[in-house]
Amino acid sequence: MSDKLRIIPLGGLNEIGKNMTVLEYGKDMIVVDCGLGFPEDDMYGVDLVIPDITYLVNNQKKLRGFFITHGHEDHIGSLPYVLQAVNAPVHGTPLTNGLIRLKLEEHGLAASTKLITHQAGELVKAGCFQVEFIHVNHSIADAVAFCVHTPVGRVILTGDFKIDPTSPEGMTDLARLGELGKEGVLALLCDSTNVERLGYTPSESVVTEGIDRQFRGCDKRIIITTFASNMYRIQSILNIAKRHGRKVAVTGRSMENILQVASELGYLQVPRDLVVDVSEIKNIPPNRLVIVATGSQGENMSALSRMAFDNHRQVTLTAQDRVLISASAIPGNEKAIGKIINELYRKGAEVIYDKSEGLHVSGHACREELKLIHALLKPRFFIPVHGEQRMLRVHEKLALQMGMNPKRIFVGELGQVIELSAKTCKLTGETVPAGKVFVDGFGVGDVGSVVLRDRKHLAQDGMIVVCVNLSAEDGSILSGPDIITRGFIYVKDAEDLMEALRYIVSDTLERCRAKHLREHTALKAAIKTDLSAYLFKTVKRNPMILPILTEL
Amino acid sequence: MSDKLRIIPLGGLNEIGKNMTVLEYGKDMIVVDCGLGFPEDDMYGVDLVIPDITYLVNNQKKLRGFFITHGHEDHIGSLPYVLQAVNAPVHGTPLTNGLIRLKLEEHGLAASTKLITHQAGELVKAGCFQVEFIHVNHSIADAVAFCVHTPVGRVILTGDFKIDPTSPEGMTDLARLGELGKEGVLALLCDSTNVERLGYTPSESVVTEGIDRQFRGCDKRIIITTFASNMYRIQSILNIAKRHGRKVAVTGRSMENILQVASELGYLQVPRDLVVDVSEIKNIPPNRLVIVATGSQGENMSALSRMAFDNHRQVTLTAQDRVLISASAIPGNEKAIGKIINELYRKGAEVIYDKSEGLHVSGHACREELKLIHALLKPRFFIPVHGEQRMLRVHEKLALQMGMNPKRIFVGELGQVIELSAKTCKLTGETVPAGKVFVDGFGVGDVGSVVLRDRKHLAQDGMIVVCVNLSAEDGSILSGPDIITRGFIYVKDAEDLMEALRYIVSDTLERCRAKHLREHTALKAAIKTDLSAYLFKTVKRNPMILPILTEL
Repeated sequence: MSDKLRIIPLGGLNEIGKNMTVLEYGKDMIVVDCGLGFPEDDMYGVDLVIPDITYLVNNQKKLRGFFITHGHEDHIGSLPYVLQAVNAPVHGTPLTNGLIRLKLEEHGLAASTKLITHQAGELVKAGCFQVEFIHVNHSIADAVAFCVHTPVGRVILTGDFKIDPTSPEGMTDLARLGELGKEGVLALLCDSTNVERLGYTPSESVVTEGIDRQFRGCDKRIIITTFASNMYRIQSILNIAKRHGRKVAVTGRSMENILQVASELGYLQVPRDLVVDVSEIKNIPPNRLVIVATGSQGENMSALSRMAFDNHRQVTLTAQDRVLISASAIPGNEKAIGKIINELYRKGAEVIYDKSEGLHVSGHACREELKLIHALLKPRFFIPVHGEQRMLRVHEKLALQMGMNPKRIFVGELGQVIELSAKTCKLTGETVPAGKVFVDGFGVGDVGSVVLRDRKHLAQDGMIVVCVNLSAEDGSILSGPDIITRGFIYVKDAEDLMEALRYIVSDTLERCRAKHLREHTALKAAIKTDLSAYLFKTVKRNPMILPILTEL
Repeated sequence: MSDKLRIIPLGGLNEIGKNMTVLEYGKDMIVVDCGLGFPEDDMYGVDLVIPDITYLVNNQKKLRGFFITHGHEDHIGSLPYVLQAVNAPVHGTPLTNGLIRLKLEEHGLAASTKLITHQAGELVKAGCFQVEFIHVNHSIADAVAFCVHTPVGRVILTGDFKIDPTSPEGMTDLARLGELGKEGVLALLCDSTNVERLGYTPSESVVTEGIDRQFRGCDKRIIITTFASNMYRIQSILNIAKRHGRKVAVTGRSMENILQVASELGYLQVPRDLVVDVSEIKNIPPNRLVIVATGSQGENMSALSRMAFDNHRQVTLTAQDRVLISASAIPGNEKAIGKIINELYRKGAEVIYDKSEGLHVSGHACREELKLIHALLKPRFFIPVHGEQRMLRVHEKLALQMGMNPKRIFVGELGQVIELSAKTCKLTGETVPAGKVFVDGFGVGDVGSVVLRDRKHLAQDGMIVVCVNLSAEDGSILSGPDIITRGFIYVKDAEDLMEALRYIVSDTLERCRAKHLREHTALKAAIKTDLSAYLFKTVKRNPMILPILTEL
């Protein structure tokens, strides 16, 4: 077999989301991360996006396991779908596996999946590979980078990380990364999310101070929203609440779920009698209470959104509320968050969301941190990952500024095979299937470009169904045309237009009949053409037209 | 008649866009601005949003004129639609009217509209009102604020503004505003767009320097995109290009249009032989050329977007291009712009868009500028406008910090009538029709909530049309059920599901028949219920279901 290492990105390259990278050598293959993405605006009706795993399915026999860097959706979210197609052990740290287990249970896959837990520092054998777990800081606890020791050399995949010297769980293990750098790193696959940002990402401790400031001397009820998965932040909120003599109520399903997992695993220390059920909050004075809510990204049915739009069963907002948004908008969510803030203000609540208040820090490394990683690891080859094209290119530029040889940097595309020996690295030109698979309801992959194109068409101008019964004998119209529209126009005020459309269809069919045209496909095409032309001329719209002809 | 002044916001309050404010006293009424808004994500298929002008139509006889602060779409864009319903003279400055004329010509309204041009400093009589034009800085030339001298006192509407002491057309006329402040201002309606931003908006001259820096020593072709309406910026680009010995080509319809109007009116000084047609650029060395392109907001068919996606007839991007994005994203456009930047990078182009490069400044006043205006005008009453709820509330807070009496600040809603005397101001509780009217193609107002709800439904899960021919005699099925779907599922891979659906419809109809149910409305409802339940259970989707029953 080949004596080359193959690295194949199946997700997370030229995109943010659905991270998945294949490493393959001879008869062995491992997969790092198994994430999902969220649909873009033009992916109508799509719930989730997962990677195309044809290559994993076709090479199942080689697959030695999945290695997961941390428990965010864009790193674990595809597991329930992927494990139904290819089964292999899943390796992660305790919290990561706790979150994965929740998912597997929901999908009835807990029993059939081998979920293996490791601590940072461990070395795990998988075929010819040895995968080393290296502690890193991120916006979720228990995150790791991987050093994959392969027959041709060490490959480091950072996963998502930053460097936080005052992190409650200790700084990213720079000492170990430094050792690996000295021993020699063949290739580095490094997070590029924040490469466009100068300087350093501030420490999580900045946020602790920022939140505490909002509690001091505050006589209102406090409502705070943040990412459910950020345990340090939740822990800080619990500590601050206790210090200020406030009880804590939690609302929102994902927040409740994660809190439970995190406290069971010991990632959260919940002081005795601190947390109360949200049903009990009416008995607690406002200035003795904090409500921790989901909804920091403006999600539709989140707790904060329900409060803002008066749909929350237990919480009614007033001028006696101070709402803290301890998060920043993930690109694309700005408007949804803005809408909620507007509604909070409309209820009279005080809303604190300004960047300058220090209520949030990013989980990803900025430029100076990235430089530090490059300087420590001094990789022979560099593959920027986890970012859109512009971030990958800016990361490439950063590596060049660090003195790297441009021929040793590879900005690839999903599915492109990168082949490494101990001395060489190249894009082979070979590609494997890669891309977006859409999940809609229970369906995986049954919504593709044709269905989406139709949905887009329907969304733009709606549709017109034309029903006509024709005589089987001579093709004359027996009844109809009847016209049914949806999403096209307010029909009650458009009777004249409806009448005109009926007239046009009759006329078209008569003309076809005069030319002895009887074939249904041809008749339907003629109806579509004539109606489309008329509609474009009169109302400048282009609804989907669906002629239904019945011959009797 | 009433001896009270009535102020009625019909647009621009609790929203960014479609600015329109009514001032009414006795038998006289004027309208300040007449803008349009762009559809939000959930307004499927809507092209534009204009204000509800029922109140203007019902009070046409009182209407003395439209007064327009400046030529941006959110201040002039509704004129073609509004003028078709109510005709009245339109007053503006030369450039504003030049841009309005373009619009009116496009809609065949130029002849029927009285368009009257004034200079800043002029006082225009309109019924009992005198409207004073006051020069302000903004991101388009020739912008004004209005001081409306009314029988009960002076009302100042700032329009969009900032304070730029080094603006090429001179600073906002603070001297005049100061005089008015001394003479006494009854009410201030003030722009709130940037009230959340600390400090001052930097001068446009910062951008001139920022762009020049990108030209110095640059050996590549330069492509620059900016807002077409920002004449200073375009003028700077022309000047910089000339200084660096580069020719200028312009591409994109709105850019070409506005350039023509602006040069005809003398707002742009185009040095001789500087501008070349885009068809000639192949004859010019890359380092002797600048291409000024539309597309700074990531618009779909803009020049820059066409370049990025290889659809531009005259421009092909290479590594020999430097692209300058001289704009920042209007909220909601971040992703579209990001996509274009990714594609530009993919072509190998160098892309400069970072805020730190100083390639753009806002056109709106930040907090310190707003404080200055409040301090100069010392209005008796304050009505924050031109902003979403959160900006209005933050602006209210700013006024309170300036020492204003909270009872004299009015954060209203669209359509609420504010009544003023020389000493008093109150929300009367009266409301007039106000809200969003959708423009879709040629249709104005014929797409409403029902049509949008259907479009949303269709967009999410598509539709299923069920056709069955029933016997008029006994209700038995003569032919069908036939099932046609669009946007629901990839049918070729779902034959089993289609078969199941046909079976369910047959079964439903048979059961109804056994119960002697023959009424079509009831049969259709039964089909919908049974199919929906089955689809939710099997694929967790909820397509629109359209049963078509024909009795023969």
